Amino acid sequence: MSNRLTTSIQDLMLRRDYMGIKKLLEETHPSDIARVLKDLQPDTAGFVFRILPKDLAIDVFDFMNIDGKQMILHSLSSDMISTILNEMSQDDRTELFEELPAKVVKKYLSLLSEKERRVANMLLGYPEDSAGRLMTTAFVDLKEHQTVDEALAHVRATAPDKETIYHLYVISKYRKLMGGLSLRELILAPGSKSIHEIMNPGIKSVSTDTDQEDVARIFEDYDLMVLPVVDKEERLVGIITYDDVFDIVREEDTEDIHLMGGLGAPEETYFSLSIFEDVKRRGGWLALLILLESFSGNILEAYSSSLETVIALAFFIPMLIDTGGNAGTQSSTLITRGLATGEISRKHGKTIFFREMITGAVLGLGLGAFAYVRAYFMQRDPMIGFAVGISLFVVLMVANLVGALLPLLAVRIKYDPAVMAGPFLTTIVDVVGLIVYFEVAKAIMGLG
Amino acid sequence: MSNRLTTSIQDLMLRRDYMGIKKLLEETHPSDIARVLKDLQPDTAGFVFRILPKDLAIDVFDFMNIDGKQMILHSLSSDMISTILNEMSQDDRTELFEELPAKVVKKYLSLLSEKERRVANMLLGYPEDSAGRLMTTAFVDLKEHQTVDEALAHVRATAPDKETIYHLYVISKYRKLMGGLSLRELILAPGSKSIHEIMNPGIKSVSTDTDQEDVARIFEDYDLMVLPVVDKEERLVGIITYDDVFDIVREEDTEDIHLMGGLGAPEETYFSLSIFEDVKRRGGWLALLILLESFSGNILEAYSSSLETVIALAFFIPMLIDTGGNAGTQSSTLITRGLATGEISRKHGKTIFFREMITGAVLGLGLGAFAYVRAYFMQRDPMIGFAVGISLFVVLMVANLVGALLPLLAVRIKYDPAVMAGPFLTTIVDVVGLIVYFEVAKAIMGLG
Repeated sequence: MSNRLTTSIQDLMLRRDYMGIKKLLEETHPSDIARVLKDLQPDTAGFVFRILPKDLAIDVFDFMNIDGKQMILHSLSSDMISTILNEMSQDDRTELFEELPAKVVKKYLSLLSEKERRVANMLLGYPEDSAGRLMTTAFVDLKEHQTVDEALAHVRATAPDKETIYHLYVISKYRKLMGGLSLRELILAPGSKSIHEIMNPGIKSVSTDTDQEDVARIFEDYDLMVLPVVDKEERLVGIITYDDVFDIVREEDTEDIHLMGGLGAPEETYFSLSIFEDVKRRGGWLALLILLESFSGNILEAYSSSLETVIALAFFIPMLIDTGGNAGTQSSTLITRGLATGEISRKHGKTIFFREMITGAVLGLGLGAFAYVRAYFMQRDPMIGFAVGISLFVVLMVANLVGALLPLLAVRIKYDPAVMAGPFLTTIVDVVGLIVYFEVAKAIMGLG
Repeated sequence: MSNRLTTSIQDLMLRRDYMGIKKLLEETHPSDIARVLKDLQPDTAGFVFRILPKDLAIDVFDFMNIDGKQMILHSLSSDMISTILNEMSQDDRTELFEELPAKVVKKYLSLLSEKERRVANMLLGYPEDSAGRLMTTAFVDLKEHQTVDEALAHVRATAPDKETIYHLYVISKYRKLMGGLSLRELILAPGSKSIHEIMNPGIKSVSTDTDQEDVARIFEDYDLMVLPVVDKEERLVGIITYDDVFDIVREEDTEDIHLMGGLGAPEETYFSLSIFEDVKRRGGWLALLILLESFSGNILEAYSSSLETVIALAFFIPMLIDTGGNAGTQSSTLITRGLATGEISRKHGKTIFFREMITGAVLGLGLGAFAYVRAYFMQRDPMIGFAVGISLFVVLMVANLVGALLPLLAVRIKYDPAVMAGPFLTTIVDVVGLIVYFEVAKAIMGLG
């Protein structure tokens, strides 16, 4: 869909049929236009953006990602930049400013109206990843003593500038958050009732410095669409809407998946990183791991006389360490994901310990038996079979427990569990696996 | 928070202070009550649920997960079951019925009012994971010729039974979807205008058999709160609300993470599976992998004469295959996640191929050099150093490309890319890595 549109635009550009482009885009959804602009050359994209009617341009800008927004802003006149920055929603603007160099932010702030500049500066003043950074101040506030009719008139009068009018908040004389109600409740209530009578007191709120992960958890736990934000004096200062939270959940899932996959700094998407940056973040992590893993070489060297006596012991090393790694990855994946979705917390430590011990034992028995049979038929030597089978049993027990407990330990020392679920595990499993393997082999085969 | 509440309830139960329980729960958010019920013994949970006031009980039921809902229904009288099933939202009911045995569904259907039974049967008639299964028929529909005032009166009159009144849909005489508008737009329009004048024509919709992943993608691409569903004749038959989509995204992310972590059937959360089921799903996968990996033993056996001549070659096997596995996991993680979030599609194949070839070459040069130094200092033998370094370079190139291309291949053959990102990769990397390693060693060290 957006591919065909991109081609049409490029054709029309070549034919210099700018009216044709304008007409085509006016019939297209802003989200689709945003996707086309991303695929075009920056110069062309800037040109196409500038021929959009003003309202459509603002909608399209909304749908672009941060990189796209920066690209478009570069190609606009100060006047148009000013229009867009003043019109865009406050939370999106904060997100954009976070990514820009301080010099550019300073210039852009100067293009805002005095009122919007005050708001933008306030929002940027909150700590990174806090509720304050996510919120907008464009909410509808009602007073307790208002009647339903008065409140409805107030909603109508202020609606055009508000982020949402479906969730309304009631404040005291000193702007303290007293309660909330939905527009549906307001519409259904008799016109002469007071807001105090129909509002829901004791609604959920967060403070400006609440961490965004906690904000996301509260949205999920209470199935919210909007969450009010209060300052230290419990005064209502903003609201957070669900769409920002959806983005956070997606980002945090991507972060977890990247960390589990052994990618150091996980904040970027695939194409947003240059090859150089990509190599840097991956290479650093791989270098650390290869350094850790190279100790397995020293372990093998220490057992080289056993290896020389029974060279066949080497044949089963890859199977042993890979299977241990696989089992450990399974249990660490289960626990890390459970922690991320909130199903598992620190209090489950003991339950998980016993559960994974049993699981590890059963898996160890089954796969150990397979390994015994496999090794026996390959080498026709029951002793090698026993060494491989018993080691695999021990390795599975250890890998399973370490895989499950590392993420829990990470939470305890306030570290990201997803990092632990990654290839660190492999290194531990390798070292333990090789030592157990050769010690068992030495014991039952009488090696030196 | 919910922990303390659970303890209080258990205390009050022991003291048989049922009024105390009731009073405590009436001050508690339904979501928190739902969490407490999950932690209580089923009998106690059922008892506590039954003393809740009816409206609160319905809200609490909404917040429970499928397992909790089943547990609660088991403890209720037919009358109460009937009340809850008739009052709950249609989409949640479909989700619940999907999980119940056919016999129980039949019984529950008989407890529904005739109208609700017809709706429930219709929704269950759509294919699994389709838009039809996610939707509710409780939407507000307007007619084109209505005035704004008439429409507002219609909204007010029908509001109590609707899933949402903030998104309104306009239909023709034959129920064809003509357009939509928000309640905000309706409220702000002059009362005498016609709906036809203010509605937005050409809004996004899906058909009843659209796959739920495509539904989720459309919600994300167009930043939607609600999406209308039409039948083959383009008649409006239902709407899907964002909360169901949020759940799908979370589920699909969990599914991807579990598959990447080498867990076969990934639909369950940690505690929802019994140990037996857990062992079964993990064991099957591990058994398949150990079978595949055991071929690395045959490869090593084929090179046993080289190994016997230079036993030190064995020392670097774990480092070689683990580093290859790590690099492959990195690139497959990047691609799989990019596919899941929609950043990457099949058309990027060529770009990705060249990008990963360059990345693999740079990583291979750096880590290969490290491996050379490491091997040289351990064995003081430049030939072993070369064998290890060159093999690691080749292994990284191969692992990186295979890791990136397997998920893309999976998409092409309509298979889940997340499975490919898992330990299958390890096996391929092991086999390729060992063959390259010994062939290089044989060539440069002149082994037999």
